[in-house]
Amino acid sequence: MEWISNSRILIVGLGLIGGSYARALKRLGFHVTAIDVRKEAIDYALENHIIDDGYTEVKKDIVGSADAVIFGLYPKVFKEWIARYQSCFKPGAMITDVTGVKSCIVYDIQNMLRDDVEFIASHPMAGKEVYGVENSDDAIFRGANFIIVMTEKNTPEGVRWIGGLGRILGFSRISVLSPEEHDEMIGYLSQLTHCIAVSLMTCSDNEHLVDYTGDSFRDLTRIANINEDMWSELFLLNKEPLLKYMDIFIDEFSSFRDMIANEDTEHMKERMRLSTKRRAYFNK
Amino acid sequence: MEWISNSRILIVGLGLIGGSYARALKRLGFHVTAIDVRKEAIDYALENHIIDDGYTEVKKDIVGSADAVIFGLYPKVFKEWIARYQSCFKPGAMITDVTGVKSCIVYDIQNMLRDDVEFIASHPMAGKEVYGVENSDDAIFRGANFIIVMTEKNTPEGVRWIGGLGRILGFSRISVLSPEEHDEMIGYLSQLTHCIAVSLMTCSDNEHLVDYTGDSFRDLTRIANINEDMWSELFLLNKEPLLKYMDIFIDEFSSFRDMIANEDTEHMKERMRLSTKRRAYFNK
Repeated sequence: MEWISNSRILIVGLGLIGGSYARALKRLGFHVTAIDVRKEAIDYALENHIIDDGYTEVKKDIVGSADAVIFGLYPKVFKEWIARYQSCFKPGAMITDVTGVKSCIVYDIQNMLRDDVEFIASHPMAGKEVYGVENSDDAIFRGANFIIVMTEKNTPEGVRWIGGLGRILGFSRISVLSPEEHDEMIGYLSQLTHCIAVSLMTCSDNEHLVDYTGDSFRDLTRIANINEDMWSELFLLNKEPLLKYMDIFIDEFSSFRDMIANEDTEHMKERMRLSTKRRAYFNK
Repeated sequence: MEWISNSRILIVGLGLIGGSYARALKRLGFHVTAIDVRKEAIDYALENHIIDDGYTEVKKDIVGSADAVIFGLYPKVFKEWIARYQSCFKPGAMITDVTGVKSCIVYDIQNMLRDDVEFIASHPMAGKEVYGVENSDDAIFRGANFIIVMTEKNTPEGVRWIGGLGRILGFSRISVLSPEEHDEMIGYLSQLTHCIAVSLMTCSDNEHLVDYTGDSFRDLTRIANINEDMWSELFLLNKEPLLKYMDIFIDEFSSFRDMIANEDTEHMKERMRLSTKRRAYFNK
């Protein structure tokens, strides 16, 4: 399938990211249909012209008329959906997702999937600390990274197709990783940071401190506003890399603590110079 | 001294915060003089009309003509300066600072200070991850918190005066704390967060990860770009509260790690709900 505007796109799971995809794709002229169990999500998206059609139940002809299907479901629900409804896909349909963990879903889905349909996984590295199609906004993709997660089962056409999706959605950088590389990276850059933010927020009864805080505490805890259902599932599905990075972080933080306790200014400064140098790579 | 625009203000230490104070006060019509050892800082500030006069050395008549003196020096240098030059102050002058730690300087300075001069400490909870008068910007005070740090030696006039400074600089919330309360609060809200950001940045050789990161990692590491001379001094001068909060954080983070290792979804979710609830207080 090429990215031409008479294509029909189906989005299954119309949350923050699914809704943001829908906004961008509909504006580009694609016919966008959505399925979501939450009636309010579908009603909101129809009223606000985010989608062309919307349904709260899966029907064969809706799925069967889509040239491409984008999944915005939680990992386990996503696998169950494919097992149950894959017979409905149009022959030659292209399938992708927005899931935050990959090894535990990509191989299983590719192994069970019909031969005439290709699933190529991807991960838009964009988001907000709020949820639902009501907060969707495709401006979050500008300047952001888009990761294609490729396996041996994927075809050159599939990779071209998903790269095209990343580009038309407005992402700035598009990269390709294996499922294992993706999960390792996400364990450090995303999951570890969320665990830190949660712990920083919960380690002190801080309600009265709001009058004194500066921006640094606000920045470090923005993502402490967290969807506990989604993230507990993501953490457990990526347990091994996440625990590895949590342990590395505990060691690093504890050694910095000991430098302060020992008044070891020289090594403290060395650590801070390294931190400053490395942070420079991440300036947008 | 009242905040009337024919007052003469001296700023000693013209860095990011000193320079931002200078910009605001000069715009309000005060006569602003600065002393800084760095000639480039004085030249820049004069060329950009941030100050009226500037000097790289301390002279008796410059100090003696100021109705108010604001110190933007590192803590130890600040104490040395007062010991050496306090004889130059104009009788009745008001003195404040912008220092990030208080117990270790406020009592010492108040105890050594002449009786006809009042030092009332304050801490503007605003900043940037860059340094120097060249990056100064008084817009950073809008929406920010200003903390007055008061002791038994301070007078009602002193507290009124420093509150007036916070207001005319544009701060949104002005609070009063004791030196001990201030240092406890800063150990958690500011110093702990900086130690976390540094450790997150240094715990992995992450140069190649910039193509994959989302905003959460950028947010948590913004302050990992850090001035190692200033912060190593601040950490050590507030060692006791900081180490207390570092240990509390290690315990909290480690227990969250164990919940993930044990797949204890119920307690993970409970922790995340608490985090979300507490973070809500900190929304601006």
